[in-house]
Amino acid sequence: MIILNGASSSGKSGIVRCLQSLLPDLWLAFGCDSFVDALPAKAQTSDGGIVVDADGGVTVGEDFRRLEAAWTEGVVTMARAGAGIIVDDVFLGGAASQQRWRKALGDLPALWVGVHCDPAVAAAREIARGDRTPGMAARQALVVHEGVEYDLRVDTTHTESLECARTIAAHVT
Amino acid sequence: MIILNGASSSGKSGIVRCLQSLLPDLWLAFGCDSFVDALPAKAQTSDGGIVVDADGGVTVGEDFRRLEAAWTEGVVTMARAGAGIIVDDVFLGGAASQQRWRKALGDLPALWVGVHCDPAVAAAREIARGDRTPGMAARQALVVHEGVEYDLRVDTTHTESLECARTIAAHVT
Amino acid sequence: MIILNGASSSGKSGIVRCLQSLLPDLWLAFGCDSFVDALPAKAQTSDGGIVVDADGGVTVGEDFRRLEAAWTEGVVTMARAGAGIIVDDVFLGGAASQQRWRKALGDLPALWVGVHCDPAVAAAREIARGDRTPGMAARQALVVHEGVEYDLRVDTTHTESLECARTIAAHVT
Amino acid sequence: MIILNGASSSGKSGIVRCLQSLLPDLWLAFGCDSFVDALPAKAQTSDGGIVVDADGGVTVGEDFRRLEAAWTEGVVTMARAGAGIIVDDVFLGGAASQQRWRKALGDLPALWVGVHCDPAVAAAREIARGDRTPGMAARQALVVHEGVEYDLRVDTTHTESLECARTIAAHVT
Repeated sequence: MIILNGASSSGKSGIVRCLQSLLPDLWLAFGCDSFVDALPAKAQTSDGGIVVDADGGVTVGEDFRRLEAAWTEGVVTMARAGAGIIVDDVFLGGAASQQRWRKALGDLPALWVGVHCDPAVAAAREIARGDRTPGMAARQALVVHEGVEYDLRVDTTHTESLECARTIAAHVT
Repeated sequence: MIILNGASSSGKSGIVRCLQSLLPDLWLAFGCDSFVDALPAKAQTSDGGIVVDADGGVTVGEDFRRLEAAWTEGVVTMARAGAGIIVDDVFLGGAASQQRWRKALGDLPALWVGVHCDPAVAAAREIARGDRTPGMAARQALVVHEGVEYDLRVDTTHTESLECARTIAAHVT
Repeated sequence: MIILNGASSSGKSGIVRCLQSLLPDLWLAFGCDSFVDALPAKAQTSDGGIVVDADGGVTVGEDFRRLEAAWTEGVVTMARAGAGIIVDDVFLGGAASQQRWRKALGDLPALWVGVHCDPAVAAAREIARGDRTPGMAARQALVVHEGVEYDLRVDTTHTESLECARTIAAHVT
Repeated sequence: MIILNGASSSGKSGIVRCLQSLLPDLWLAFGCDSFVDALPAKAQTSDGGIVVDADGGVTVGEDFRRLEAAWTEGVVTMARAGAGIIVDDVFLGGAASQQRWRKALGDLPALWVGVHCDPAVAAAREIARGDRTPGMAARQALVVHEGVEYDLRVDTTHTESLECARTIAAHVT
């Protein structure tokens, strides 16, 4: 199991797709985006769900946290059942978010990867992709890494996704 | 846990979104589409993955089956952990596909829903949606229900998704 | 040139895709969705652009109207240059919106098609598709047809998109 | 009117979205992607349409060329009618493709921008985006610029989309 943590627009998804291309077997990819897609549309306008403010601030409620915990357990079960799993997440809670995964993982090994990106560059890429609320990238850029321990860090500021993925894949096989 | 089974273009996704809107809590939705999205792009051109022929025939390989089994276990774990889960699946193997879920479910109760649709109508809707290989709907229309046991059947031929979802929701709450 | 007018979630896009499948040549499809996609992301949060309220009300500003007029002229030019064109639009201004197209068309003939749908059914389909602000379908259902003259009307309440498209195609070839 | 030409995965779309964000007014964006979206689904499996080979080679037929010519005229008409227009195109025919636009433009001024990218970097980004047939980027990287004259060239190999867009915007306002 590979767990990537990085802020919005730091380049996680591109790295995940490159990893899926590079790794010899078929690895499944899950992440906060696919989790949010699994939620009802109404979760994005309810206090218990996940609300993105006009300035890119993200607030998640109790229902979100409860479902996320169940989802985390389920994803770990898939890995335990023998599937190669790549997760990309945004540790809004920093070290506490990592702890949530660690608790679910138990003795299952994971490769922890920090995906870093210069906040100004991430903010520029946020404008270029056009599908995120401006401000999210800069707000999350540093806070998601606070207190998190990694086996490996990659930085997408000057390095292409494929190159970052090669570095990660070298630790897997 | 609610498990919907029906052919491609039978109207499962619409029913799922209506169920997520109708049900009082936030329910997570997973299905064969989200599973395929989690696979590497290369899975769609490899023997071990999932290949869709030009006439809409779908062939899945051993790697697909192995990962699907792990995914099934993981989704059941999410339900066991307390999340309301709606699954929409295409039982290409009919009764054998149901058996795969039953094995993973163990003693966890599930509401089994058959989503039926007149094959000609499903084929017409396949053209209207425009994002599926023509032929898939008609090929799968009957075979996916062979030998499958349901608590409930809905038919989208003349009934709107929301109405079908109301019937299903009445069995849940 | 074929111009379809109908409210949000009345089934225009499905009919357009069926028409493109049925008609012997390759016809180009444009519509309010592709026009909005061509606008900057910031148009959806600016007074001059297009703002969708939480209850599904749509307000368009002067910049939107000015660009829409230019776009309308351009689409008519494509038809004049010999391309088969299918337009699907939402005549928020009713007869005035039709007049905008007529002015651009000049002597170029067009087949005017009204796409009707029972407001309650359209509202149900709006929930089933899940990507529109609830309320838009019901609000627009009747107003978009006010004072508009058609060569042909189709009703998607009980008729599949493909069947509606067949009726329209019979008037073209 | 701004016309960007560059190979697949050279970074055109990101630059377009940044330009739309930077430029003071609302500019409309059209391009080969939105043109292909306007074509029937069947155009991608017909000789007259646009066929992408398994190795990323693109072949376009006579119907495609005819419709593209009509579309080009229409887009120029929108600019003539006063709309700010940004086009991103892939000049598969090099200088001949530019000539097609010049003929449609007549005396209407345009800013010609070449979007360059190191072929190996474009190929890496093609893997990272995951939605293009691998091989397309490398095949097109050089050929699309053959004989084309530009007012301005940007290179996305080491420069972010937003920075490229700033350079272009400085030539507009």
